[in-house]
Amino acid sequence: MTRSFSLAVVAGDGIGPEVTSQALKVLDVVSKTHDLSFSTTDYDLGARRYHATGETLPDSVLEEIRGHDAILLGAIGDPSVPSGVLERGLLLKLRFALDHYVNLRPSKLFPGVATPLGDPGDIDFVVVREGTEGPYVGNGGAIRVGTPHELATEVSINTAYGVERVVRDAFARAQARPRKKLTLVHKNNVLVHAGHLWSRTVAAVAPEFPDVTVDYLHVDAATIFLVTDPARFDVIVTDNLFGDILTDLAAAITGGIGLAASGNVNPDRTTPSMFEPVHGSAPDIAGQSKADPTAAILSGALLLEHLGVPEAAAQITAAVEADIAARGSAPRSTEEVGEAIAQSVTDLGAAEGVP
Amino acid sequence: MTRSFSLAVVAGDGIGPEVTSQALKVLDVVSKTHDLSFSTTDYDLGARRYHATGETLPDSVLEEIRGHDAILLGAIGDPSVPSGVLERGLLLKLRFALDHYVNLRPSKLFPGVATPLGDPGDIDFVVVREGTEGPYVGNGGAIRVGTPHELATEVSINTAYGVERVVRDAFARAQARPRKKLTLVHKNNVLVHAGHLWSRTVAAVAPEFPDVTVDYLHVDAATIFLVTDPARFDVIVTDNLFGDILTDLAAAITGGIGLAASGNVNPDRTTPSMFEPVHGSAPDIAGQSKADPTAAILSGALLLEHLGVPEAAAQITAAVEADIAARGSAPRSTEEVGEAIAQSVTDLGAAEGVP
Ligand SMILES: CC(C)[C@H](C(=O)O)[C@@H](O)C(=O)O
Ligand SMILES: CC(C)[C@H](C(=O)O)[C@@H](O)C(=O)O
Repeated sequence: MTRSFSLAVVAGDGIGPEVTSQALKVLDVVSKTHDLSFSTTDYDLGARRYHATGETLPDSVLEEIRGHDAILLGAIGDPSVPSGVLERGLLLKLRFALDHYVNLRPSKLFPGVATPLGDPGDIDFVVVREGTEGPYVGNGGAIRVGTPHELATEVSINTAYGVERVVRDAFARAQARPRKKLTLVHKNNVLVHAGHLWSRTVAAVAPEFPDVTVDYLHVDAATIFLVTDPARFDVIVTDNLFGDILTDLAAAITGGIGLAASGNVNPDRTTPSMFEPVHGSAPDIAGQSKADPTAAILSGALLLEHLGVPEAAAQITAAVEADIAARGSAPRSTEEVGEAIAQSVTDLGAAEGVP
Repeated sequence: MTRSFSLAVVAGDGIGPEVTSQALKVLDVVSKTHDLSFSTTDYDLGARRYHATGETLPDSVLEEIRGHDAILLGAIGDPSVPSGVLERGLLLKLRFALDHYVNLRPSKLFPGVATPLGDPGDIDFVVVREGTEGPYVGNGGAIRVGTPHELATEVSINTAYGVERVVRDAFARAQARPRKKLTLVHKNNVLVHAGHLWSRTVAAVAPEFPDVTVDYLHVDAATIFLVTDPARFDVIVTDNLFGDILTDLAAAITGGIGLAASGNVNPDRTTPSMFEPVHGSAPDIAGQSKADPTAAILSGALLLEHLGVPEAAAQITAAVEADIAARGSAPRSTEEVGEAIAQSVTDLGAAEGVP
């Protein structure tokens, strides 16, 4: 029986459309060997629409998107638009409106991938970044703007409700992994109110997961360990802003943001979850077929996992691993990488005996 | 003519006292070859005092400290004290009360130092971290603590006055360096109010320093470049929290926090500036003579530079470089490292013909 899924596709700005089309190609190929069918709706959102209409994410479009099974997103942001307008008005609006409280960012050093670390060890961890609170809530303001008396604030908002649900999700993910280790990252010696809420919540939830080992690192110390001993990490749970910072660093040590996938997940499944590469719109290389679509393709794998088709997800991941291992130093175009991975998916499907 | 300086010494917790005494030893040795004299006052502050009296930094002690030419600090923080009590009540209280708005953190990869990066390149930059604003102001709170309805906030406060003075200081430092490059690091696509204040301020001050090249990075991207291309940085100016995170990472790529020195500087010289290693109190190795005192010793060099004795500062730095280049893999005690650097300072003084 064919399983059918509806996808809202927000290709977005810069390299977004290029990498998204490769992700869709790979999803299409894998759908054949797993009896899946995807219907896609393209949403023209981002810089072009903003310039044409002044809109970032109209409520009616948000409601349409809400009707899909999942969202595939490319990248948002363009230098022609004031910094923050599209990020806050589109990307973060989607994450917040759809209550994507688990921002899931796996980091794995695939065999054959170049890393800036001299002796990386065995890197395989996942960051569970809170997605709907913290300094990202947009609760800031400014007075006397542009005068010598300007004052600007940013308010980090943290609730027991919000922290507990993401902490519980992170514990469950840690429990499902072989090493069963959870590291809370915060800065509870300075941001004492938010930090202690996080620490107390982890301590309170821990007894429900007695087989999970728990430790704590300040965010500054965590960046040190990410470069000196990244193999120490299994699951990291952290706040929205710290998660943003740590996952770019995590991507850098595992071969770069060209390979880093992410999911903005609502584990309650009351809204569509959204899958996107960790990288941004990279306007400097947009339209030149230079972007590496691997992160977008791996985001497609996370999407399949979330939709309950882990075999198909694993096939994409295996195809990516095979492609990475075979990568030489010669540059390939965005299409060439996508094509190679799609071909590898097909080959793997054939090897499994699926026509 | 002998120049005399009064130093307030806050050795603090954990390894603080061990590393501070080595820093003082080196200052003593260098004073002989440069006709300096230091009078020191020890302040017993930190965990022991807190447990004995409940005090972190009594106002009367703060006023005494204020009467000195500079402060040498070891490390603050102990697991026996709730996280944040000593950090907020002592370390940050000193930084804020003494208006240390320039938190100066140089990062240099000395020849011979092991780095986790495979191909580090020529790392030599300085982070100018704002020290009196941002999310560090302590302007947060919580309601319904310990209930399912707990809400905790942290407020980042940023003023034109506060941002402009540190930005101007950073520009001046960039101008004084050969490469004359300044990188603003923030997250102005999310923290739009604070971020745009920073961006506008940099743009407004830039014309005063026409020979300084300016660029901007989001904090997440900055962590990537710190591991993939750290040589791109010359002077970084950034907010208090981002600076905290970036400088631990910067320390990690240049040999670890055992080598990273810092100054909490009031460039207006209306209060004593404070010099301390970037590392913390490391309670796990305290009292075992295992701590590397190099960061504390280099903090002494920053202190001398601030007090207007750059020749003496340079001599300490040269002695540290010589010691590092000669370091084998055999572990040395805290005293042995301090002794070796002190000896090297003496040798350098003799080479310069000073008895
Ligand atoms: C583009 C930006 C708003 C976004 C974020 O800060 O979350 C990005 O950096 C990411 O990590 O997905
Ligand atoms: C101990 C802590 C409060 C401090 C900070 O966060 O500033 C430390 O990490 C530092 O960088 O000096």
